[in-house]
Amino acid sequence: MDLLKNRIIQDGKVRDGRILKVDSFLNHQMDIVLLNEIGKEFKRRFEGEKVDKIVTIEASGIGIAAIASQYFNFVPVVFAKKAESLNIDNDLYKSSVHSYTKNKTYNVMVSKSFIKANERVIILDDFLASGCAACGLIDIVKQAGAEVVGVGIVIEKGFQGGREAINNLGVKVESLAIVDRMEEDRIYF
Amino acid sequence: MDLLKNRIIQDGKVRDGRILKVDSFLNHQMDIVLLNEIGKEFKRRFEGEKVDKIVTIEASGIGIAAIASQYFNFVPVVFAKKAESLNIDNDLYKSSVHSYTKNKTYNVMVSKSFIKANERVIILDDFLASGCAACGLIDIVKQAGAEVVGVGIVIEKGFQGGREAINNLGVKVESLAIVDRMEEDRIYF
Repeated sequence: MDLLKNRIIQDGKVRDGRILKVDSFLNHQMDIVLLNEIGKEFKRRFEGEKVDKIVTIEASGIGIAAIASQYFNFVPVVFAKKAESLNIDNDLYKSSVHSYTKNKTYNVMVSKSFIKANERVIILDDFLASGCAACGLIDIVKQAGAEVVGVGIVIEKGFQGGREAINNLGVKVESLAIVDRMEEDRIYF
Repeated sequence: MDLLKNRIIQDGKVRDGRILKVDSFLNHQMDIVLLNEIGKEFKRRFEGEKVDKIVTIEASGIGIAAIASQYFNFVPVVFAKKAESLNIDNDLYKSSVHSYTKNKTYNVMVSKSFIKANERVIILDDFLASGCAACGLIDIVKQAGAEVVGVGIVIEKGFQGGREAINNLGVKVESLAIVDRMEEDRIYF
């Protein structure tokens, strides 16, 4: 997706040679025009697939998934939560996920009411690195007896094994931009 | 907003007489058709106001704000973050907020790059109770030298003082549904 790659080149920043900051347009400040183009492109990548639901994970996936839903017949979006709070149902699907950027392991959780057996689910997220978050979401969808149509990723870091981890679960990955290599303020696709 | 009130009556659940669960359509599973109607109504409530940016807070505000932006000329959405991570800028506006549902105090943070002096900002969130989150966001917008046009809330719990707290800061509140009183499985507007 050239529009996205050009935006990453223009506004992305590399920190410590390993962290790609795109928080000016994707995951802190969000460019809603760009998010609409991203939603259209996800629809194109999954054209012809029946989709009942989009599942994502808080926080950065939510805006992407909400906008993308508009191109998938406005199917409901469910976002997995990362910490237990008083106003979440006790009846939960859970999976354990390690975050490299936050350097901690946590449970991701979805109320059992919101993914039903045999639903066809697309998983969307902003980043794919090691694949931990996506694999946790796949685990949850499978616990529900639902089917993962595929995983849609805005930016894949192609050198951290995430795609292989997801493919090993029998799930296909569609990434809109794949970063092969990063140097200080230089990004290779 | 009758569509919203009817949906709250139909699908909302009261827990322990004080927690209103609307996670089947608003803040865990999201009904994107409803979110579009909510976005249109926020636009109507702030009709005629120049708006440069929408500010919200992770996680539940993000989908609401992303969809609403489409009715405000696709202005950028900035979501305040609740915990420090490695990929957020060090140059941050911070404010301290207490969450009653999670029963803890945390910093909310916005990178200084994403709110500029003299910008006109609308703050959107899913719930207003004590007003802590909204007041924290107002504090951050004011630290940036920007102007708060108003606070837009999907569901206000009208008996927990949040509106007064915000009005005391000189900011107006537009809530799409105001709950006056709750009993087990009965909600009064």
